[in-house]
Amino acid sequence: MRLMRLDRRSSSLPLSNVRIVDPFWSKWQQILKETTLEIEYQKCIETGRVENFRRAARGERGTFQGKYYNDSDVYKWVEAASYLLSALGPDARIEKRLDEVVAAIASAQMADGYIDTFFQVQHPHLRWRNLGNMHELYCMGHLIESAIAHHEATGQRTLIDVAIRVADHIDGIFGPGKRSGYCGHEEIELALIKLANCVAEPRYADLARWMIDCRGMKPSPFERELQDEEAMALSPWAPAWFLKDGKYSGSYAQDDKPLREQERVQGHAVRTTYLLAAATEAFSGRGDQLVEDALERLWTNLTERRMYLTGGIGTSSANEGFTHDYDLPNRTAYAETCAACGLIFWANRLVHMTGDAQYADVMERALYNGALSGISLAGDRFFYDNPLESTGEHHRVEWFECACCPPNIARLIASLGTYFVSSSEDSFWIHIPAALEAKCVLAGVPIEVNLQSNYPWDGEIEIDVRAERPAHFSLHVRIPGWCEHAQVELNDVMPEMEFADGYASLIREWNSGDRLKFSFDMPPRWTVANPKVLENAGSVALERGPLVYCLEECDLGGPVQQFAADPRGEVHIDEGPLEGTVGLKVAGGAVTSQSDELYQPLETCRLDLKTPTFVPYYAWDNREPGSMQVWLRTAPHPS
Amino acid sequence: MRLMRLDRRSSSLPLSNVRIVDPFWSKWQQILKETTLEIEYQKCIETGRVENFRRAARGERGTFQGKYYNDSDVYKWVEAASYLLSALGPDARIEKRLDEVVAAIASAQMADGYIDTFFQVQHPHLRWRNLGNMHELYCMGHLIESAIAHHEATGQRTLIDVAIRVADHIDGIFGPGKRSGYCGHEEIELALIKLANCVAEPRYADLARWMIDCRGMKPSPFERELQDEEAMALSPWAPAWFLKDGKYSGSYAQDDKPLREQERVQGHAVRTTYLLAAATEAFSGRGDQLVEDALERLWTNLTERRMYLTGGIGTSSANEGFTHDYDLPNRTAYAETCAACGLIFWANRLVHMTGDAQYADVMERALYNGALSGISLAGDRFFYDNPLESTGEHHRVEWFECACCPPNIARLIASLGTYFVSSSEDSFWIHIPAALEAKCVLAGVPIEVNLQSNYPWDGEIEIDVRAERPAHFSLHVRIPGWCEHAQVELNDVMPEMEFADGYASLIREWNSGDRLKFSFDMPPRWTVANPKVLENAGSVALERGPLVYCLEECDLGGPVQQFAADPRGEVHIDEGPLEGTVGLKVAGGAVTSQSDELYQPLETCRLDLKTPTFVPYYAWDNREPGSMQVWLRTAPHPS
Repeated sequence: MRLMRLDRRSSSLPLSNVRIVDPFWSKWQQILKETTLEIEYQKCIETGRVENFRRAARGERGTFQGKYYNDSDVYKWVEAASYLLSALGPDARIEKRLDEVVAAIASAQMADGYIDTFFQVQHPHLRWRNLGNMHELYCMGHLIESAIAHHEATGQRTLIDVAIRVADHIDGIFGPGKRSGYCGHEEIELALIKLANCVAEPRYADLARWMIDCRGMKPSPFERELQDEEAMALSPWAPAWFLKDGKYSGSYAQDDKPLREQERVQGHAVRTTYLLAAATEAFSGRGDQLVEDALERLWTNLTERRMYLTGGIGTSSANEGFTHDYDLPNRTAYAETCAACGLIFWANRLVHMTGDAQYADVMERALYNGALSGISLAGDRFFYDNPLESTGEHHRVEWFECACCPPNIARLIASLGTYFVSSSEDSFWIHIPAALEAKCVLAGVPIEVNLQSNYPWDGEIEIDVRAERPAHFSLHVRIPGWCEHAQVELNDVMPEMEFADGYASLIREWNSGDRLKFSFDMPPRWTVANPKVLENAGSVALERGPLVYCLEECDLGGPVQQFAADPRGEVHIDEGPLEGTVGLKVAGGAVTSQSDELYQPLETCRLDLKTPTFVPYYAWDNREPGSMQVWLRTAPHPS
Repeated sequence: MRLMRLDRRSSSLPLSNVRIVDPFWSKWQQILKETTLEIEYQKCIETGRVENFRRAARGERGTFQGKYYNDSDVYKWVEAASYLLSALGPDARIEKRLDEVVAAIASAQMADGYIDTFFQVQHPHLRWRNLGNMHELYCMGHLIESAIAHHEATGQRTLIDVAIRVADHIDGIFGPGKRSGYCGHEEIELALIKLANCVAEPRYADLARWMIDCRGMKPSPFERELQDEEAMALSPWAPAWFLKDGKYSGSYAQDDKPLREQERVQGHAVRTTYLLAAATEAFSGRGDQLVEDALERLWTNLTERRMYLTGGIGTSSANEGFTHDYDLPNRTAYAETCAACGLIFWANRLVHMTGDAQYADVMERALYNGALSGISLAGDRFFYDNPLESTGEHHRVEWFECACCPPNIARLIASLGTYFVSSSEDSFWIHIPAALEAKCVLAGVPIEVNLQSNYPWDGEIEIDVRAERPAHFSLHVRIPGWCEHAQVELNDVMPEMEFADGYASLIREWNSGDRLKFSFDMPPRWTVANPKVLENAGSVALERGPLVYCLEECDLGGPVQQFAADPRGEVHIDEGPLEGTVGLKVAGGAVTSQSDELYQPLETCRLDLKTPTFVPYYAWDNREPGSMQVWLRTAPHPS
């Protein structure tokens, strides 16, 4: 196991400097612009989420609509819309919507900086009294993230000034020598660190780091709050989440012991990833070995014991989170879209801090599979949980009462440039080889890196460098963990390269017109799970490149659970039933019986030869409803 | 499909006329006598279940202990203890306990005949106001059944007189021209029919039939009760159980439409079987074709779409009941012990009414597997739910807060003579060939039928007839549905026989010393489920005779989910690891990997050859805790 050292190697480029031209992803960003953002805006209007801010501004009482954390959905929509403006350039409709929503938000802020419309409208005297459950800091964190995105996209200060007042308000209440407190649902930490960088105010990052340090110390502020009957009446579920055998545990909210002592990822999966992403950033460059060891330990536990093949995490709907090692049931997998996003947020930061491709491998897995599955191909329907098997009852829906996932997947897709490439003063990193055009300054020289590919459908990558003048910098290209054979050419010859931590590194003087080609072999491959994953013992899954495949009922003509794959048969590329995707035709057989009896002698049962086409997992449930499976039995008799 | 006609063909013998000498079952009756009944008595004392009666007798208020239906556990204990006295003869300790408990019960009865200690002590003014949820008639039904058993065992009238007053009280309130009402949990119907037979008072049977007829008519009394806020405060869960989309449904309690119109078994499984058992008896001999068709339909739906291989029924813990056709998950199977008992109660009545062995086949399956699994080999620990797979977390416990199962399995085992044989004026029926000695009068002649066997371990059955003088009667012996080859000899020659509805019938003049031998071939057999049971597609289960087998972790040396069976290999009898049982040694392989990675290329995975011994399902979880499986994958590569 490589030991983790957090010492920033690179950073994301400004979103406006990365233009996604990828045939795969630019389609998604167009869908976002044309469909998803408008749908989500309309939902925020219809459900009173935006109106709540106006009611707070008017000083109304008792008229709050919806769930207490609904402000956060509006903020995440603002963030997604702003990212998309940065990524794609001006758009009149989005800008108009943004102006309207941002004005509503700003109007609600109180004189002292506080803003949380649920408390303002419903329970003004209970604010800051139920940190463990009521998501005030969580919502304000999303406000801050959205404000930074909005400022970067538009140059306006309308929302960033609100955010600064919020941060100052929080900083005035919580911190060393002030009140000990943090949020039951982590998020404020990530936001404060971003704000510190955005406005160059280290005080905010210090506060975030202090919150991470306090978490899990005894006595917990959440434990004390349990005695506050009036505030607890807001969250009757609190004892169920925070107590174990009648005593305070807090593991649901990663509050049972300090981060440095945590052994395994536990509790609510989204909260876990937000905490760990924030800690990765907050402790980078500080040489805090206990934190680095803890993050290493938790990463390994998460990705080597508790992660679905799709990058989905969080096994159980009961706690929206983790259970125990190797417990990865497929049909009841929770694997919340937001948790896959959270894993991407964390992995992205680890990539930047370490330059280690193992984190990018997981980021890619979650992005192309467990996160992207959260949105329909048309961009108008969503999954909250992303199981790896269905008997036909699980379907995308238009919206959720708890609507965290739709705007989360939107802000992820709108900001893809953040994840694909990064740079430092003298290095450029390609983590995911989607086609894009990036601009940055390397070794003092303005550089353009143009990447062409048809990823993830094939592994042919072409990278063109344009430099105003020759420039000496290193170009790091990740060799995907799934790739067993790769070829490289620089200007048609095999270049000198170094390989470290999963990246091919070319450290040289680059000239305009330099052309680098990578060819990643991308054969279909059969994957098995560790036999300790009892659910998958004896089953296989089909992958190709970064994509996990699945079998859907409409491609088999019957319930997929009846199908057994023959992994010794050849797998053929098949343009397949889903336009714009590569399908994979697989040999196998489906169990069948002539008899209607419930239980029958083995001899009555036959295996009908079948060669159905598998489709990418992210694209499932976009046609006729039916059953689906990622992990398939293997055929007992050679077909 | 054979059409069901309910017209009594035979009846159970008095329990005292059937002595079980079976090596298999007499051991269980001894355990009951020495251990189980005493444990259950002590639990009824410790938990205040018996004390509740004394508190009611003293007119206490507000001091009731435990669950509102706890009276029923005491009644079922009385019933079990009484059956055991009938079956095994006098026992001083049991008789002493019985006298004490019966006295407590009798002391609690009110002047008007009412008895329900929860209402008497806690809510006297709410009695009869929440029939749908509060189990008053259910409890009184168990009182009546226990009283009949007690009277038959001891000849005493202490409890039967209480029961008659209870029945008269109920009959005075409910019935045609009186109040329309029945119980949310069926049971009173079965009890009233038994009482009608016991005391020759058809009025009670009429009332039972009327309750069955009323059930499901509109408006339902349960629907009306939902408006009674004070009474509903006792059962805050009522809307969740009885409403669907805000409207009254009642399907949870088989109250959505009349029995004659029911298409599928639905709702709570125990309630369903108790209703159908009662209806089978109540409508026998009446030529009510709509009821007969409904029972046929529901039986077929239950046993051909919704029954586990073990005879366990009721898929879901959410409603303790049925879901949809072919939905038979193994690990989360509810398959409550009481529901298997209920299925046996129903099947037994169908056997008596029709003389059709298909019902006895199911009765036998549930008895030797899904019901018997409910009690540990030592008789001191119990299962409430009986899943067909465990990853190691499911274990027998000493008692339950809702303790319906332990006394239910006790009263079943104590009264086995009720299920194995039956008779009419001129016929004797052997439904399950356990070793026993039965006495009855056939064609006016006192007859003894002595059956010797080592069932279920082998299929060699010997039946000796002793008759005071030659007697002409028919002897019907069930050919088990699982048996493909049987041989018969009467006094060493092949007799003349008729075969109808699964029984071999010898209609002749019998003489003392006549000896009939059956030899049922009992090879191990591999069973598959209908491919529509998606959970089991591609899996096999091992059976032998009436027993379903399973694989336990301690017999494999690792999690059983890693094992795949090779059903083409030979299965060997193995005295096996569990004393007194026949084990079956099976060839196959366990998935293994050299790598610790969570996801691996197929090639890293191997199948280690293994030949573990399977044990009978009923006997699982009696050794080291671990995983267990009934349905096993088949080995993908021939071993």
